[in-house]
Amino acid sequence: MNKLRNRELLHGGDYNPEQWLDRPDILEEDIRLMKKAGVNVVTLGVFSWSILEPKEGVYQFAWLEEIMDNLYQNGIHTILATPSGAKPVWLDEKYPEALRVDEWGRRRHHGVRHNHCITSPAFRKKIGEMDRLLAKRFKDHPGLLLWHISNELGGACYCPLCQKRFQEYLEQTYGTIEHLNKAWWTVFWSHQYQRFDQVEPPFANGEGSIMGLNLAWKRFTTWNMADYLRWEKDILKEITPGIPVTTNFMKLYPGLDYRVLAKELDVISWDSYPRYHNDYESLYDTCIENAFDHAVMRSMKKDRPFLLMESVPGAVNWHDYNKVKRPGMHKLAAIQAAALGSDSVQYFQWRKSRGSFEQYHGAVVDHLGREDTRIFQETAETGRVLAALKDVAGSVVKAKAAVVFDWDNRWAIQDMKGLSQKKKEYEKTCMNFYKLFLELGVETDVISREDSFSTYDVVAAPMLYLLGEDTARKLKEYVAGGGQLLCTYLTGYVDKDTLCYLGGFPGDGLKELFGLYSEEMDTFYPSDKNQVRFLDGSLGEVRDFAEILKLSGAEPVGVYIHDFYAGTAAVTRSQYEKGSAWYVGARLDEGTMKRLLRELCQEAGITIREIPGNGEYHVRENGEARFHFLLNYGEETIKFQDVRGMELLTGEVAEGELLVKPMEAAVVLEKKQLAKGEDR
Amino acid sequence: MNKLRNRELLHGGDYNPEQWLDRPDILEEDIRLMKKAGVNVVTLGVFSWSILEPKEGVYQFAWLEEIMDNLYQNGIHTILATPSGAKPVWLDEKYPEALRVDEWGRRRHHGVRHNHCITSPAFRKKIGEMDRLLAKRFKDHPGLLLWHISNELGGACYCPLCQKRFQEYLEQTYGTIEHLNKAWWTVFWSHQYQRFDQVEPPFANGEGSIMGLNLAWKRFTTWNMADYLRWEKDILKEITPGIPVTTNFMKLYPGLDYRVLAKELDVISWDSYPRYHNDYESLYDTCIENAFDHAVMRSMKKDRPFLLMESVPGAVNWHDYNKVKRPGMHKLAAIQAAALGSDSVQYFQWRKSRGSFEQYHGAVVDHLGREDTRIFQETAETGRVLAALKDVAGSVVKAKAAVVFDWDNRWAIQDMKGLSQKKKEYEKTCMNFYKLFLELGVETDVISREDSFSTYDVVAAPMLYLLGEDTARKLKEYVAGGGQLLCTYLTGYVDKDTLCYLGGFPGDGLKELFGLYSEEMDTFYPSDKNQVRFLDGSLGEVRDFAEILKLSGAEPVGVYIHDFYAGTAAVTRSQYEKGSAWYVGARLDEGTMKRLLRELCQEAGITIREIPGNGEYHVRENGEARFHFLLNYGEETIKFQDVRGMELLTGEVAEGELLVKPMEAAVVLEKKQLAKGEDR
Amino acid sequence: MNKLRNRELLHGGDYNPEQWLDRPDILEEDIRLMKKAGVNVVTLGVFSWSILEPKEGVYQFAWLEEIMDNLYQNGIHTILATPSGAKPVWLDEKYPEALRVDEWGRRRHHGVRHNHCITSPAFRKKIGEMDRLLAKRFKDHPGLLLWHISNELGGACYCPLCQKRFQEYLEQTYGTIEHLNKAWWTVFWSHQYQRFDQVEPPFANGEGSIMGLNLAWKRFTTWNMADYLRWEKDILKEITPGIPVTTNFMKLYPGLDYRVLAKELDVISWDSYPRYHNDYESLYDTCIENAFDHAVMRSMKKDRPFLLMESVPGAVNWHDYNKVKRPGMHKLAAIQAAALGSDSVQYFQWRKSRGSFEQYHGAVVDHLGREDTRIFQETAETGRVLAALKDVAGSVVKAKAAVVFDWDNRWAIQDMKGLSQKKKEYEKTCMNFYKLFLELGVETDVISREDSFSTYDVVAAPMLYLLGEDTARKLKEYVAGGGQLLCTYLTGYVDKDTLCYLGGFPGDGLKELFGLYSEEMDTFYPSDKNQVRFLDGSLGEVRDFAEILKLSGAEPVGVYIHDFYAGTAAVTRSQYEKGSAWYVGARLDEGTMKRLLRELCQEAGITIREIPGNGEYHVRENGEARFHFLLNYGEETIKFQDVRGMELLTGEVAEGELLVKPMEAAVVLEKKQLAKGEDR
Repeated sequence: MNKLRNRELLHGGDYNPEQWLDRPDILEEDIRLMKKAGVNVVTLGVFSWSILEPKEGVYQFAWLEEIMDNLYQNGIHTILATPSGAKPVWLDEKYPEALRVDEWGRRRHHGVRHNHCITSPAFRKKIGEMDRLLAKRFKDHPGLLLWHISNELGGACYCPLCQKRFQEYLEQTYGTIEHLNKAWWTVFWSHQYQRFDQVEPPFANGEGSIMGLNLAWKRFTTWNMADYLRWEKDILKEITPGIPVTTNFMKLYPGLDYRVLAKELDVISWDSYPRYHNDYESLYDTCIENAFDHAVMRSMKKDRPFLLMESVPGAVNWHDYNKVKRPGMHKLAAIQAAALGSDSVQYFQWRKSRGSFEQYHGAVVDHLGREDTRIFQETAETGRVLAALKDVAGSVVKAKAAVVFDWDNRWAIQDMKGLSQKKKEYEKTCMNFYKLFLELGVETDVISREDSFSTYDVVAAPMLYLLGEDTARKLKEYVAGGGQLLCTYLTGYVDKDTLCYLGGFPGDGLKELFGLYSEEMDTFYPSDKNQVRFLDGSLGEVRDFAEILKLSGAEPVGVYIHDFYAGTAAVTRSQYEKGSAWYVGARLDEGTMKRLLRELCQEAGITIREIPGNGEYHVRENGEARFHFLLNYGEETIKFQDVRGMELLTGEVAEGELLVKPMEAAVVLEKKQLAKGEDR
Repeated sequence: MNKLRNRELLHGGDYNPEQWLDRPDILEEDIRLMKKAGVNVVTLGVFSWSILEPKEGVYQFAWLEEIMDNLYQNGIHTILATPSGAKPVWLDEKYPEALRVDEWGRRRHHGVRHNHCITSPAFRKKIGEMDRLLAKRFKDHPGLLLWHISNELGGACYCPLCQKRFQEYLEQTYGTIEHLNKAWWTVFWSHQYQRFDQVEPPFANGEGSIMGLNLAWKRFTTWNMADYLRWEKDILKEITPGIPVTTNFMKLYPGLDYRVLAKELDVISWDSYPRYHNDYESLYDTCIENAFDHAVMRSMKKDRPFLLMESVPGAVNWHDYNKVKRPGMHKLAAIQAAALGSDSVQYFQWRKSRGSFEQYHGAVVDHLGREDTRIFQETAETGRVLAALKDVAGSVVKAKAAVVFDWDNRWAIQDMKGLSQKKKEYEKTCMNFYKLFLELGVETDVISREDSFSTYDVVAAPMLYLLGEDTARKLKEYVAGGGQLLCTYLTGYVDKDTLCYLGGFPGDGLKELFGLYSEEMDTFYPSDKNQVRFLDGSLGEVRDFAEILKLSGAEPVGVYIHDFYAGTAAVTRSQYEKGSAWYVGARLDEGTMKRLLRELCQEAGITIREIPGNGEYHVRENGEARFHFLLNYGEETIKFQDVRGMELLTGEVAEGELLVKPMEAAVVLEKKQLAKGEDR
Repeated sequence: MNKLRNRELLHGGDYNPEQWLDRPDILEEDIRLMKKAGVNVVTLGVFSWSILEPKEGVYQFAWLEEIMDNLYQNGIHTILATPSGAKPVWLDEKYPEALRVDEWGRRRHHGVRHNHCITSPAFRKKIGEMDRLLAKRFKDHPGLLLWHISNELGGACYCPLCQKRFQEYLEQTYGTIEHLNKAWWTVFWSHQYQRFDQVEPPFANGEGSIMGLNLAWKRFTTWNMADYLRWEKDILKEITPGIPVTTNFMKLYPGLDYRVLAKELDVISWDSYPRYHNDYESLYDTCIENAFDHAVMRSMKKDRPFLLMESVPGAVNWHDYNKVKRPGMHKLAAIQAAALGSDSVQYFQWRKSRGSFEQYHGAVVDHLGREDTRIFQETAETGRVLAALKDVAGSVVKAKAAVVFDWDNRWAIQDMKGLSQKKKEYEKTCMNFYKLFLELGVETDVISREDSFSTYDVVAAPMLYLLGEDTARKLKEYVAGGGQLLCTYLTGYVDKDTLCYLGGFPGDGLKELFGLYSEEMDTFYPSDKNQVRFLDGSLGEVRDFAEILKLSGAEPVGVYIHDFYAGTAAVTRSQYEKGSAWYVGARLDEGTMKRLLRELCQEAGITIREIPGNGEYHVRENGEARFHFLLNYGEETIKFQDVRGMELLTGEVAEGELLVKPMEAAVVLEKKQLAKGEDR
């Protein structure tokens, strides 16, 4: 861990020299170009299994050692991957059980990636042997910085081995079949199980009507993946206890609860591929969605930086429209990553492969092979920027607000049979709350309902449909202790197994906290509309959903003004001991929500700092200093107010205002002893 | 049967006390609330198999008896379901043959519903044992009103057992393989069969090119389902000959010819779930489509009322947008059901289940559990309305007009390879004819081509593509006898096995009836248009289809005015003995069709009663009285003319005009001895 | 071959008397009607297997002989099909290996067509026996004109037999597994094979990530089909060496490289079914697309005419909207076929079948059976036109320009993972080039990159993404020798196995030819735009794709005027020895491309003849004469300039100008000794 912390910011990416072992000229050129580009780290060994072990039990590590040696001698460290991301053909041929089975029960053929049964003992044995040998060979290599376990873990397997493991998981979780039947309400449609070994995964042509089963299967998939991850990790840790481990996450990948996997990791890392310059949203919106993703990643380990393990110079090859990043975008995205808490900017990939699936995925070095390309030059410029921000390394982000965003709720809301399937938009709703906080200048974490709320002044938990065993208690304690809490329509409908609460939503005692219950949920057709009038006369627009509320203590803050529930409360506030619990019964427009959040923040004593349009603002800090990041995604210069300190990219000193040009960023160093306003 | 007839109108719904056996407080509350809501019937036992028989051969009926006793003591009768709608897990585990096989030949896993092979001897044996025991146990129960066999029967199975049964069906139907080959024109593409056991169902990756096979498979599916239904029925009838049986139909479910199943039933019942208040049509249109569905159901047994077995208080959970019914809609829909001939208004479901697939399907009692909710109150109000309409029970609707609407034609037109797949719209076309008759105040049945036409003054048989063995003869007899018949483009193309008639469409002798043949069918792109000019100079708009007709006796009523067939006949009339045969060669706009139908009705001597926009009008009658139903789906008060008698909901007496407010209805009792105008 | 050449133009179509063997009246009527319609050829035996061999080894040929005799006696020749287009049920029952296996590994059931494994020894044996007997029986029949092998060959099979054959093909092609691994870059994702027998087809749930494998599978499918075609042919040729063979192609069917199959054929024939009178393009555009298809077919054997084996009188039954051809369209399409080089106009089908899949596919004789129908009359009129054009038979088209259009490139571009999947439009781009040449009055072939370029003055090779082993060399030689070559964005990215060229695109030495390399490819969202300014100040519109070019010798002809690459070259020209190589880096609007092509043609010394809007112009010629075809798809009369000679349909003599009415055509005979302008 030591090596990784408190170094300079990392710059580099996935490097696949095994594709060029017969081209020493290219390998040599790679080193030359890496130095030109300011690369100080590469990731090796992802997908190298068939080179490392061309036949079962025949290992070839010398080429890898030579590459690592050479890199290290040139000042470049190595993140070393275990090669379980894709299997050699001999493995599938000898151990067909290692091939994944899909939701129709069909065993896949050899090929592509994400095609292994992680339960398979044969697969685990083979990758275990590999990992042990890799760790032994390189445990003392001075260039080894970090273990990168497998690659972009994902997917699920429905094979008999996984099915059995699922049943074991269920028995561990529920104890008795009666308990499971009760929790899943299997009495509906006569679906009661008699024994755990009767429970099958939710096959596409099998049982798909039990919400509890569907959710348990998702949780099992995560549980089993965490078990697998731990299993690879334990082998590595036994031999190299001092080398931290990571695996690279994929944005908000819906198939795995990353917060569970995160517990197995020393460092969070992820792969970021926004659709920049698209035709359906502003560049600002694209970048703020990316900020949200960064914040999700950062908030999994708030005490340390994360890594941006993959991003692309140029364009990827798998978007609908693979448009190249405009000049400056690359650098701006790199600074944004740093602003949100990353200690690295890394790429997939260093050099484009000549053939196969990703031959057109962007890279620092193109098939063209030249260093005078725009992409190479912008990458090198990014290298220089990261060098200038060296001191940022190791610093963290401290947030005053939090948005609750949950895999359990993603799964349960998605699978909920009701409302309108197309309009649920849980992820987007959470992201919008995050965005509004940022626009108010309030640094915000994105956390789980299982995290502690106590460190935050404001917590927004939109669409908190599913409550865990102590979620309601924690929310009450949080407000009782003085917190400002905001929840919305669709709060507290079901327990952790998706059983509906009886006696009124929000359930599990939250009716008391909010001083109301929801009698009906009105679902809108897209052309349906309603409005809310607030106490100050302002109006909010309602779309998609409107709960019809009955108050029992809450004070109405806004009321519906149309339809048969006109005049009833749409937005309420309830004083609960030292804090306040706000309830927003309808999906409201952004402007209205921003006014509400501003009010909450002010109640919570947070200083609002209105960020100009198209601008983004973050602070990282360590014991000695604060680093203020100011970014501009617009087409006009932004004037940021109240900025003081040295701008690290230009060396200029800001004494109040700072102008940031379009597609540019500034990073201002504020020494802590000089800090005046602690509320920032 | 006695108990069911001549009672008050039924009010109630599906009740699942087996979900709450550990909550006697809730069961007790249910009785209290049912009485408050004016419930006098519930449906029990749907999906109760795993409770009634938790292990094979171990039966638990006591709970059910206790519930039925308690209900009966509180004035509530029971419709008792056989539990074959969903199977317990032990059954699928022990008898995998009972699991359905899909069109790809894949056997499904245990789970969901509609997942049994109805051919399976094992399945039939198990449900037979269950039904026999149920019937014996409850045969003398005073609360038992009606048997409800299974639930929403549907789907098809492609397993080897069904395949063999299909071959037996074919042998029964066609006698020899040569006859089948001839009927299906298998000589095309060298598809002649040599033996019946070579004929496979039309698997998704099998034979899909023989229209005759496709149609035979649909008919077999119905035939086999009717056999299954009869099989359950016979067991019940043997033990409880006096208890009528039903099964609940699903709107115009395309998979089964309900008219064939209807023959096995004593009472027709169905489940109605319109998409009220949607954004793609007026509320009036939504409700008139529902009226059409009611009329289809009613017309299957014209001598008696049907039952509305399921409808929803509030909103369902499976529409695209699950929007709650607006205030009053519930009552208005209930009155509409009664107006169309239903003797009940029942709900799925009484109380929402806590979990699983339908936890958010609307119910009288919500998870909230309160009686002061809008939904509960509107349900109770509906109970009061039904009580006030008590005398309507047992009365019937007598129609002067009929629209022919046929499952065989639905299947054959859908599968027809020609025209434009997207624009065929057979169902919609039939429904539009029904709607136009209603707007002219003409009560209309929706019948099969196999029903008798002789009781009607006017018959419209749009798109009568497929003719049965005696359809043409019957149509000719009907017109010869003085009937007014209207047919359209796409009439009489194929025989009952989908072989095209030679010598001109409409075939089988209908050329003589209509005095014309169709030389070509022009299919329009959506932007293509044509017009028809009528004798009176009025114009009609043509879309989708235009037949180019050659007249041989028919008189032209309207001619095309554009394209290369301008000046040729589009609409014709042919005097045939005592009646007239009208032919509409093109798909015309609603206004034009209304003018044509008005003319036909006038020719037939039917008094036209123009119903004001957004209004609906029906009459039910019995030996003593007529009940005039007047409904308003609009936003303005409707003044209905020529209404005389006592309005049953208010007790007021109408003496000519009657005002009905928006979203309200009136039911006016006219004593038969007072009736003046018999033509109504 | 003799019989086929230098005859009159053929007129006729698929005839299925086996469907009417029990109706001698109909068979007799067929002969009478054929003579009325000017039919001189029919195709027999397509799909007759179950009649010819009703049980295995039991053959019935007498009926066929009788039909052929009778036809011949009435002046009608026969094209005799081998019946392998669809199998009898007994074959699939006895030899399940003959049933095709789909991309999911599922063996299909008996039924439909295109359902045989062409590798299957059992299938080949049975069809071989059939073909041998057919050939022996009819080898001396005077009516036998041509063999028609199978029908519309297509599809692929993934069965174990095909898989093994694929591995043999790969071994033949690549020699060693190391060579294959290198060519496919399998080192990516650890996908190196150890042995050929490990390589599976790209199953839907198998290996889909290796572009080289995907392409090899496509090539193998063609290779295996050619082998099958040769296998049927060799049997026929052994017995009837003097009878030419064909098989009917389906437009630009993407599944098979027709140019490879063409090598097995004596005559090219194809099936043409344009969507005339649709709502998404002008009739002119529909017809020019059809012209392109004709040109593709013709260019496969430039020294002889091809046959239009199928077209439809009226409408097909499988388009989205099956709209009947407007009056005159039929004749116009027939003349277009002749204009493009066809020596026949044939139909599917002579008479509509009564049942099964194609019962509504258009035919000369309808179910109605009358000869006074519009369709029959227009067909008879077409027969008279073809008779008047008798002398055209055997003449050919000589083109000055060529468009390169390639199956390998279709496959490789389609499978390329990059750009935007929806906007690649390779086929449309090639077709647009062809259209522009026609509008400039330049007769154009559509050829393969493997054909010779030397006979053309101008060659356009748009989107020539994949280069064969000597493509680059040939292009250089062509230009060096004085040719005008135009290539575009996406040229020369990959070699024949889809490995990217290193060192810059266009690769394999084409950088030198064009004097530039492409640094980046910008992919546009649909709303993105750019423009190009040319030297003369004219502007072109850019959409979809724009390459950013670096010039090393080329002279810029147009430059981008927006975005970060404004001012850089978009269109260039490079003098290379005696010729010029033009590079169009962006997708430009039609008007701009037309200006560029006009310039190229002028440079090449081709006389431009601007064809009026909605007009089409072609020339066929033989030793003695030229036949000028002038067609008008518009709604106004077209005045064609510079036309001299006798118009064959009217007998009038043109002496300069010729007026052609809407939906009409003229064919002007120019005797060669009278010809003045050789540049035409």
